[in-house]
Amino acid sequence: MVSRHRRSVVSFAAAAAMLVLPAISARASSGPEISHFKLANGMEVVVIPDRRTPVVTHMVWYRVGAADEPPGKSGIAHFLEHLMFKGTEKNPAGRFSKVLATIGGQENAFTSSDYTGYFQRVTRDRLRMLMEFEADRMTGLKLTDEAVLPERNVVLEEQNSRVANSPSAKLGEEVQAALFLNHPYGRPVIGWRHEIEKLDRKDALDFYNRFYTPNNAILVVAGDVAADEVKALAEETYGKVAPRAEIGPRKRPQEPEQRSVRTVTFADPRVTLPSLQRSYLVPSAATAKTGESEALEVLSQILGSGTNSRLYAKLVIEKPMATSIGAWYQSSALDQTRFGVYGTPRTGITLKDLEDGIDSVIAEIAEKGVTNDELERAKIKLVADVVYAQDSQATMARWYGGALTTGLTVEHLKTWPDRVQKVTSDQVRDAAKTWLDKRRSVTGYLVKEHAKPQERRS
Amino acid sequence: MVSRHRRSVVSFAAAAAMLVLPAISARASSGPEISHFKLANGMEVVVIPDRRTPVVTHMVWYRVGAADEPPGKSGIAHFLEHLMFKGTEKNPAGRFSKVLATIGGQENAFTSSDYTGYFQRVTRDRLRMLMEFEADRMTGLKLTDEAVLPERNVVLEEQNSRVANSPSAKLGEEVQAALFLNHPYGRPVIGWRHEIEKLDRKDALDFYNRFYTPNNAILVVAGDVAADEVKALAEETYGKVAPRAEIGPRKRPQEPEQRSVRTVTFADPRVTLPSLQRSYLVPSAATAKTGESEALEVLSQILGSGTNSRLYAKLVIEKPMATSIGAWYQSSALDQTRFGVYGTPRTGITLKDLEDGIDSVIAEIAEKGVTNDELERAKIKLVADVVYAQDSQATMARWYGGALTTGLTVEHLKTWPDRVQKVTSDQVRDAAKTWLDKRRSVTGYLVKEHAKPQERRS
Repeated sequence: MVSRHRRSVVSFAAAAAMLVLPAISARASSGPEISHFKLANGMEVVVIPDRRTPVVTHMVWYRVGAADEPPGKSGIAHFLEHLMFKGTEKNPAGRFSKVLATIGGQENAFTSSDYTGYFQRVTRDRLRMLMEFEADRMTGLKLTDEAVLPERNVVLEEQNSRVANSPSAKLGEEVQAALFLNHPYGRPVIGWRHEIEKLDRKDALDFYNRFYTPNNAILVVAGDVAADEVKALAEETYGKVAPRAEIGPRKRPQEPEQRSVRTVTFADPRVTLPSLQRSYLVPSAATAKTGESEALEVLSQILGSGTNSRLYAKLVIEKPMATSIGAWYQSSALDQTRFGVYGTPRTGITLKDLEDGIDSVIAEIAEKGVTNDELERAKIKLVADVVYAQDSQATMARWYGGALTTGLTVEHLKTWPDRVQKVTSDQVRDAAKTWLDKRRSVTGYLVKEHAKPQERRS
Repeated sequence: MVSRHRRSVVSFAAAAAMLVLPAISARASSGPEISHFKLANGMEVVVIPDRRTPVVTHMVWYRVGAADEPPGKSGIAHFLEHLMFKGTEKNPAGRFSKVLATIGGQENAFTSSDYTGYFQRVTRDRLRMLMEFEADRMTGLKLTDEAVLPERNVVLEEQNSRVANSPSAKLGEEVQAALFLNHPYGRPVIGWRHEIEKLDRKDALDFYNRFYTPNNAILVVAGDVAADEVKALAEETYGKVAPRAEIGPRKRPQEPEQRSVRTVTFADPRVTLPSLQRSYLVPSAATAKTGESEALEVLSQILGSGTNSRLYAKLVIEKPMATSIGAWYQSSALDQTRFGVYGTPRTGITLKDLEDGIDSVIAEIAEKGVTNDELERAKIKLVADVVYAQDSQATMARWYGGALTTGLTVEHLKTWPDRVQKVTSDQVRDAAKTWLDKRRSVTGYLVKEHAKPQERRS
């Protein structure tokens, strides 16, 4: 029952990897001229010119994700993403995908806590056809129990293989649930299994009718096409879709002040190497004060990205305690987000020892800041990644879609490299001191078996 | 700004103490004949005769509590309880309380995760007047910003004194939030402070109009009064209140399977003695299989109630590790609930040592069960408490109100002592083994300050 479509649940961590570098310098003369406008029905459009090859990347993003689900219906955002391939009155199930396959197109879809998106890549002459298909399923989705119930099994199987059968993913789910005491970011994007099992056709249609309306959607087109051309095509296709729901501000329950150090220990006989993963509650690009998110971005580079990072240098090379180690920052989120560190100890080193090692490395940055060399290296890396990324239509399109669905603007992305350049060593130190506070964190331990009381006492 | 009314947030733990013994034997010839019926508008009525003195205890219970609040509006159930004293068109603010004071009556109100209740005690000749007042505010509540906003400060001050300024209560709040990954029982009854701060008149009225309707209410009258007399009075007062909302089943998001051992450490310089408190996720009387909740009740007695309990005998007397120690079970809950253990180590004993001691005591019961002596003593105590409690009108009334608002029946309460009598040693052992599994638990540590990395390494 595995679907033919390559669709994915974008976990927070995956989203971090995907969106951690959300910008292109306005000053880079080679940077594209982004167009951003609205259709009469409220649908936003972003056009990113890329004339190198006669192809286009086409994405429709909805401002809705797992954090917008009604309580008790976790997984419905992702389940609906699957069901969007079940056809409409006009285009029965499979036709859209079949046509794409015939013309050598690619397609994909993804769901995160904050957004859901649909992606295709085709030659430029097929853009109108693509838009007609996508606009059709924005309003005409037809769901029968015969289509919905087997697809629910597909999703349950996906939950099995991605989470239930992966001790590390299961621990990640528990850490996330323990980190967010009140905010729905604590909910897994794929959903809690016992709730997925009860999702039905009505749940999917209710969610679809409430959120899949043009005034809640963003079209992103990157490729060999001009903005006015996209505008004309969009008006003729998406522009014909009438809004069917009002969209208010996206208000989710926020976190109380966090003041407790938390741990989660998950034991599974399949664990061969113990490991630890910690998440801190930190500001996102959308919620941070000026410069704070950029400082966290630089901090995550210096602390835990690559073999030059502090964690790697100190705990893998200098004093070998870990076999793998790192840090990440999920900057793209509408509300408060996560900064993560993780590591796997070498044989003979306990999780506690490695954790103390990590704590010491963080404490040193929080106290003394970072060197100018580190600062410059991190900035060069971050900005270079932005420049290199212009090479990929899909990456560019995902940045803009991801930004606009998590409370940011096109302008924010354009000026991001400049703001990164301004980050100082003091700001990095302050970010570590303020935000990498264990009282705002959950540390997860993955072990083979739980310690027995008498063992722990020794 | 402290209110004159003695009102209370019923925390889970407090509710446990209050409702842990929810029954009266049908076979005890001295037990009262409980009447239970419905008015035409859907309001339920329970009458508990008690002819010893010419007084009546009158309670109106609503089937709504903190777990029924809309996301982001935590605290609204409790805030509305406060606002119910702000008067109606007919009876301006203060009149009800003033009249009660004049006639020597008592009043109180309480909010829990599952219910909200209003209580008065007067001489029997005042019952009709009481019902008129209470029926009036079931439908005629009048709220102005002038009344609402200062009362919100009262509630914030209450949150300050009860939670924010009590390290132990703060830790309890965090343990509860960490225990429930998905269910709104993780939400504090008084609310998250940042959400209380935003509650307003509209939130209160929306909640009132949705839940304060006679078809969602239970009248409990205990005292010197006959059932038909109460029925007549109720029809003439509450019976006149038209239902103003439909009440569906109370469906809350349920917990995923819990498989992680969790800890929460809260440090506060005011802590003079460290302590620990652990909560397990366990079945409630309403969700348990036959006999399971009764076995947990007996287990909590044997494990941790009084100086004969296992925890006290082993860890205070036999091998002195603790200065205080105990266990409790919150049986009254519509959904899965909590079983708790707690302890304060003696000087020189670490929290870890005490925790290992507690774990060993629990492991012994889970492996070997309990003795016949222990079993008999626990049953005698539980049933005796029920008999003694008949002495208190208020306790009786609270049992019935608490039971009917948490998914139980009058019959359940009547047969409870019989079911407790049937609990076997094997059932107690199995309850400990199945439910006191650390993978279903959160352990909270209250300490003066967090350990430093280097200290922990030693």
